[in-house]
Amino acid sequence: VGVTKIRGVIPPIVTPMHPDGRIDVESLRRLVAFQIDAGVDALFTLGTGGEGPWLTAESRRIVLETVASAVGGRVPVLAGVSDVGTARAIEAIRDAEATGCDAVVATPAFYGDNGQAEILAHFRALAQATDLPLIAYDIPSKVHVKIGAQTAATLAHEGTIVAIKDSSGDEDGFRAVIDLTADLDSFSVITGSDVIADAALFQGGDGLIVGMGNIDPHGFVALYRHCVAGDWGQARQQQTKLRAMRQITQVALPRIGGFSATIGAFKAALVERNVIAHDTMHLPLLTLTDAEKQAVSDILAGLGIKPAYEPAA
Amino acid sequence: VGVTKIRGVIPPIVTPMHPDGRIDVESLRRLVAFQIDAGVDALFTLGTGGEGPWLTAESRRIVLETVASAVGGRVPVLAGVSDVGTARAIEAIRDAEATGCDAVVATPAFYGDNGQAEILAHFRALAQATDLPLIAYDIPSKVHVKIGAQTAATLAHEGTIVAIKDSSGDEDGFRAVIDLTADLDSFSVITGSDVIADAALFQGGDGLIVGMGNIDPHGFVALYRHCVAGDWGQARQQQTKLRAMRQITQVALPRIGGFSATIGAFKAALVERNVIAHDTMHLPLLTLTDAEKQAVSDILAGLGIKPAYEPAA
Amino acid sequence: VGVTKIRGVIPPIVTPMHPDGRIDVESLRRLVAFQIDAGVDALFTLGTGGEGPWLTAESRRIVLETVASAVGGRVPVLAGVSDVGTARAIEAIRDAEATGCDAVVATPAFYGDNGQAEILAHFRALAQATDLPLIAYDIPSKVHVKIGAQTAATLAHEGTIVAIKDSSGDEDGFRAVIDLTADLDSFSVITGSDVIADAALFQGGDGLIVGMGNIDPHGFVALYRHCVAGDWGQARQQQTKLRAMRQITQVALPRIGGFSATIGAFKAALVERNVIAHDTMHLPLLTLTDAEKQAVSDILAGLGIKPAYEPAA
Amino acid sequence: VGVTKIRGVIPPIVTPMHPDGRIDVESLRRLVAFQIDAGVDALFTLGTGGEGPWLTAESRRIVLETVASAVGGRVPVLAGVSDVGTARAIEAIRDAEATGCDAVVATPAFYGDNGQAEILAHFRALAQATDLPLIAYDIPSKVHVKIGAQTAATLAHEGTIVAIKDSSGDEDGFRAVIDLTADLDSFSVITGSDVIADAALFQGGDGLIVGMGNIDPHGFVALYRHCVAGDWGQARQQQTKLRAMRQITQVALPRIGGFSATIGAFKAALVERNVIAHDTMHLPLLTLTDAEKQAVSDILAGLGIKPAYEPAA
Repeated sequence: VGVTKIRGVIPPIVTPMHPDGRIDVESLRRLVAFQIDAGVDALFTLGTGGEGPWLTAESRRIVLETVASAVGGRVPVLAGVSDVGTARAIEAIRDAEATGCDAVVATPAFYGDNGQAEILAHFRALAQATDLPLIAYDIPSKVHVKIGAQTAATLAHEGTIVAIKDSSGDEDGFRAVIDLTADLDSFSVITGSDVIADAALFQGGDGLIVGMGNIDPHGFVALYRHCVAGDWGQARQQQTKLRAMRQITQVALPRIGGFSATIGAFKAALVERNVIAHDTMHLPLLTLTDAEKQAVSDILAGLGIKPAYEPAA
Repeated sequence: VGVTKIRGVIPPIVTPMHPDGRIDVESLRRLVAFQIDAGVDALFTLGTGGEGPWLTAESRRIVLETVASAVGGRVPVLAGVSDVGTARAIEAIRDAEATGCDAVVATPAFYGDNGQAEILAHFRALAQATDLPLIAYDIPSKVHVKIGAQTAATLAHEGTIVAIKDSSGDEDGFRAVIDLTADLDSFSVITGSDVIADAALFQGGDGLIVGMGNIDPHGFVALYRHCVAGDWGQARQQQTKLRAMRQITQVALPRIGGFSATIGAFKAALVERNVIAHDTMHLPLLTLTDAEKQAVSDILAGLGIKPAYEPAA
Repeated sequence: VGVTKIRGVIPPIVTPMHPDGRIDVESLRRLVAFQIDAGVDALFTLGTGGEGPWLTAESRRIVLETVASAVGGRVPVLAGVSDVGTARAIEAIRDAEATGCDAVVATPAFYGDNGQAEILAHFRALAQATDLPLIAYDIPSKVHVKIGAQTAATLAHEGTIVAIKDSSGDEDGFRAVIDLTADLDSFSVITGSDVIADAALFQGGDGLIVGMGNIDPHGFVALYRHCVAGDWGQARQQQTKLRAMRQITQVALPRIGGFSATIGAFKAALVERNVIAHDTMHLPLLTLTDAEKQAVSDILAGLGIKPAYEPAA
Repeated sequence: VGVTKIRGVIPPIVTPMHPDGRIDVESLRRLVAFQIDAGVDALFTLGTGGEGPWLTAESRRIVLETVASAVGGRVPVLAGVSDVGTARAIEAIRDAEATGCDAVVATPAFYGDNGQAEILAHFRALAQATDLPLIAYDIPSKVHVKIGAQTAATLAHEGTIVAIKDSSGDEDGFRAVIDLTADLDSFSVITGSDVIADAALFQGGDGLIVGMGNIDPHGFVALYRHCVAGDWGQARQQQTKLRAMRQITQVALPRIGGFSATIGAFKAALVERNVIAHDTMHLPLLTLTDAEKQAVSDILAGLGIKPAYEPAA
């Protein structure tokens, strides 16, 4: 499957684990099936929500192989390759190439306090190292530097990147990248926001890579289709419904950190929906307590979100 | 060499590279010799300034082996093992064990927005995975979460960590850890500040892991000895002299990011002193321009800091 | 003029000064006329962009009287009363009452590091002190605390505030307040963003209090009318044109601070359009240099924005 | 009383209020007496901890007159004049002049996002407006911009300011100002840190303007005298004891904001010590609950800090 212009609903799938920390291959296959059955346009594996940066190289390879095999070419697969330094990200790219992924997604290198010069250097080195399309991933809440709109535009116009995923929450920056790349037919601006996805598409965004798509892919596929059809009123109504689901990310706060609380809740919800078997996180990320899981369960019930499958035998 | 109580001057040595990105083993050996000849008490390799988190596992192993062999047991070697997730940090610990390091140094896991609960989980899992002494490394400018004083004290009292390196710049936190661990004879509080090292030792700190020690280890050894002798006035004078060297970290700003500008200047200064051969950085970290290197050279000359060795043939 | 439901285009007008620091009453009257002629729905004076918090009480009274007299009841006048403490804000409210303003607008008290408890206390005390409608002004870039969505909803439901102006740039918070006050017919959610005003209205916002409305009120009135008519495509096109004007706020950076650079450019543009006589700012806010003013002039010319009046004789 | 070189212990006294919000003149007089009896070198009124920026001009005048009369020239009085804009700060200076204060203390103008250019403009305009010595007050936690070390040095060398109070917690900046003004005999660098006051004096600081000096002026006078005598070991021991008192600032968190929690606890402690009558704060700042006051009381008892006076009849 080749990627032409990246668009549509592309859930950044979580990485299910067994309680002992091994990748839960069976759950991962079921999650892939759940997503494709819901009509998503592509899948993004080993992203932030997929705990990609936390995993050892070996675990990452198991995830890539499992996803590639479960997808079977039905939709494009985007693989996260974000890491501290360029050389390490290139090692991750090699594994993505080996498993036939369709594109790679990288944040700027993180940990150091990089500026725009380092961001340009990083993406150019990655693009030179691979023939796969490269997508920039702007998530300053984790990387602690924002990909400037001019930086993104430069990388887009020179052909270094084919798309940007914007999880910055910076309302002006998102629009600025759309403006500055309006002349590029095949460049995509993707939002990472599941709370104003409708407004992002209204403003000219091409697609959604949204964490809550793990739990309710049908809901985001519906929202996207309303937008494509120009049914903005329905899109907005659908967004309002989807927003309510975000409450689940608050139940473990402030006991654990915000990222554990968010992805932990996503996994708990997927267990509740019988999509994956365990809500285990990769250390040091932590899981929800039983009481917190019950709160997630109650929120989902209140929103009418039911198990997607029969309980596993 | 066993580590009893960690104290003294422990430079976090940079990692010299060839211009093509390979580890420059010869320069690294010369840097080790330069440090030991200056009378340092231990060496810290693969720390932040050592670009440890940026390096591939293979490069890291080359560094560990080179340092271990060059040190030859004359002083303890501390190895940085900081990484995004616990499992990856444990892989780094295995390599440190294999090369006979004396202790391992870890920041909290980074990238995710971790809280104190994740910090506790991370250090406890690391300590359980190794018999080597574990040192916590508090550097919120890179990790974006601070190890709380209570968290540090908890880890110290339960025996999870034997020391903390405080590069937080948080004046109250540093003192709080000293207060809260005053009952532990063998626990060390080490400052990462090369700009108020005298004040840190005055307040009860046990040692210095300071980046500028790369360039002028003799200066910091002298400062430390003044403090141990209670010659506080001389210590303060010495600190004032050492502070002036910090100007070199400003010459490349804002052209490149702050970390490239700092470590790039350290490497440029070590080239100037004929200790290492090249000032190459690990991508995406960037090096100084010729004009910036000249500025570094001028600053060093103004401070009377001369080459430590004859130019290599 | 009574305020029923606040909606539409409400420029936060700047406060023109003579070069010696006195309020330039004549320029202020011309600015009011310029705005009303353009069809704005109300005017907001002594807001942040109006340098309200910088002015002495005497200067504030001159501004209030001038605006009230120049408006002559044709549109509602909203008066900014933001200050460090509650008692001082109440003094400002008294002056607003004395000049017949239609509503008062207050940020949370600032300077101290207040939390939601202090925000609730402040707005409740202000509302109790006046019969004028009270509008909350959420601008964490200046106040350094965000009015939480739940706090805003609480204040709205208990009748403390009749509207909120959201200049936070927090995409989720803006939408959350809309959701949480959807049951209140007469509560208004106003955006302070001139860069995604279309998206704010698309999401259910009721109006615009946008700084660039000073310079091009006709442009924002047109954008608002497209939105009300459901012509979302035209609204988006109009927004794209208006966004380009934002470049003027960059020309003085980083020579002076961001706020001087922004409001200084607004005033320079209004001088260029022959609406006000001088671009003087209230100390310590600084003005643009001649070269920077020329850059503003060039940007406006490039966008086809021409003088609105003949040059004053 | 003229100020030559500012040095020593200078508590930033709180402003006692009656429960209805009026200034509690009698308590303020007793607080002044308590401080002077303890041997402090000067008093700072209407600072941040004195809630100066929160007060109306009328309340500020009452405070100034009360303090001036109660001090009666026995020690210098420093008056806070910090405000949003230069013109407003100058109004505050006039009141300080009228009541015979010995020096004025100003933060940079706040609320707007000022840079170093605005800071220079502000202090120069203030100095030009008065013959009183001007002290810069660096408190970025409230003002949200730091007075750069170079900016401070420029203002010091040109004679605009006679001292700086550093409440920034920036370890490098404090030392940098000391280095950069070492050639100025009469310039003072004062720390605002009550948690490492010993280290600040060790590094060359000239004095202490520390909030906890309200509660235990004797303790800080003792600490200062140890430092002046070069008894660094005793100074450090004394500091350790004083640090323990800081716990009282945590008891109301996170129920109320950090500033309410801190100054509220200071006032509660002064009530406990029978120095002032009420712990009322200026709205929107909030007071401690009875349970929280009990916690303050328990902490003080545990530290052996007893009432300074018999209970008022």
